[in-house]
Amino acid sequence: MNERLKLYSYWRSSAAYRVRIGLNLKGLSYDIEPVHLVRDGGEQHMPDFREANPQGLVPVLRHGSRVFRQSLAILEYLEEAWPTPALLPGEARDRARVRALAQAVACEIHPLNNLRVLQHLEHEMGVDADGREAWVRHWVEDGFEAIEAMLVDHPSTGRFCEGDAPGLADCCLVPQVYNARRFKVDMAPYPTIERIEAACLALPAFDAARPERQPDAPSPA
Amino acid sequence: MNERLKLYSYWRSSAAYRVRIGLNLKGLSYDIEPVHLVRDGGEQHMPDFREANPQGLVPVLRHGSRVFRQSLAILEYLEEAWPTPALLPGEARDRARVRALAQAVACEIHPLNNLRVLQHLEHEMGVDADGREAWVRHWVEDGFEAIEAMLVDHPSTGRFCEGDAPGLADCCLVPQVYNARRFKVDMAPYPTIERIEAACLALPAFDAARPERQPDAPSPA
Repeated sequence: MNERLKLYSYWRSSAAYRVRIGLNLKGLSYDIEPVHLVRDGGEQHMPDFREANPQGLVPVLRHGSRVFRQSLAILEYLEEAWPTPALLPGEARDRARVRALAQAVACEIHPLNNLRVLQHLEHEMGVDADGREAWVRHWVEDGFEAIEAMLVDHPSTGRFCEGDAPGLADCCLVPQVYNARRFKVDMAPYPTIERIEAACLALPAFDAARPERQPDAPSPA
Repeated sequence: MNERLKLYSYWRSSAAYRVRIGLNLKGLSYDIEPVHLVRDGGEQHMPDFREANPQGLVPVLRHGSRVFRQSLAILEYLEEAWPTPALLPGEARDRARVRALAQAVACEIHPLNNLRVLQHLEHEMGVDADGREAWVRHWVEDGFEAIEAMLVDHPSTGRFCEGDAPGLADCCLVPQVYNARRFKVDMAPYPTIERIEAACLALPAFDAARPERQPDAPSPA
């Protein structure tokens, strides 16, 4: 377990952002290997990176000689390899709730709105910028409406998605809100999501993981 | 743990199909509550069902008074509540591989191709039937190419995705292949996926979960 961790990341990738938060919450130190998803047609399509991940997607985590793919699988790996502090609660039924919230982002919203899908809409289907923004907003709003309903008034919801400690669901929710703001989604209908986002971003683990804090983020103009 | 299990399912939903396989592999008995995703504008949008799942998606599992959502979260719950036979291997690094394969289906292929997305493409964006089929095939082929690369020649791949016992990744892969065939995807470039699918469907747990064996499947013409 003493082998160095290396994260293949892109500053604005919300899936990489999830893993950065998880690594920070666990207090693990790691190197960032930036993969520029746009420059030169996308470094994720280069043969070197494809060997690490045939999916051509970030994040990828290297731990010694092992390569880990898919952000939720990486977060579960961190949880199993470094159990404390926990990202999941102790009871199976509560763990299921947290995973369902995480997947409400990672399986229902984000896959529809990531870069490769927006590029496909533009280049293969001729959808213009307005149409692409409407697409993104539709799926974010549809997903956030459901997540807000799953959070508000639920007895397990606390300062964070589950109780008063940040966990797996928060790792997914905060990057998705970042993405929503980028696409000018009106957050007013989702007060519980906004409240939890604010509580998270007040923590150093979340703050340090922000896109604009990454070594590959462009300098402010 | 002796409370009855009830699965809200739709015969052709590949996310529900995943959970049916998992329940069968665990040897659990359960009742099926069919939710017709098309009839009357979709029973998943009715207030009764929205109370069980604000996402308006199947599957939902009821275990006593608890409600579980999101197919992968449900499968992890089954694994934790009924550990034997295991759907995940024992080592953290191998568990991560299996979860990454499952998510390569559940986070990268299926979310782009499920019913609500195809309905959105048709009704909101005016994409015709040929365009929708091309859309589905594009994401399946892109995803299967990566999954085939993750499986072929990997030392952990056995008769199934991980070793010689069926598990979480197989629960996701088989329904996705069903879906691919429905949309006439040429499976020839994915021989490892096809071989594993055949090994799975030879098992009663997979066979009994097939769409055409479900109580709500239409009678053959």
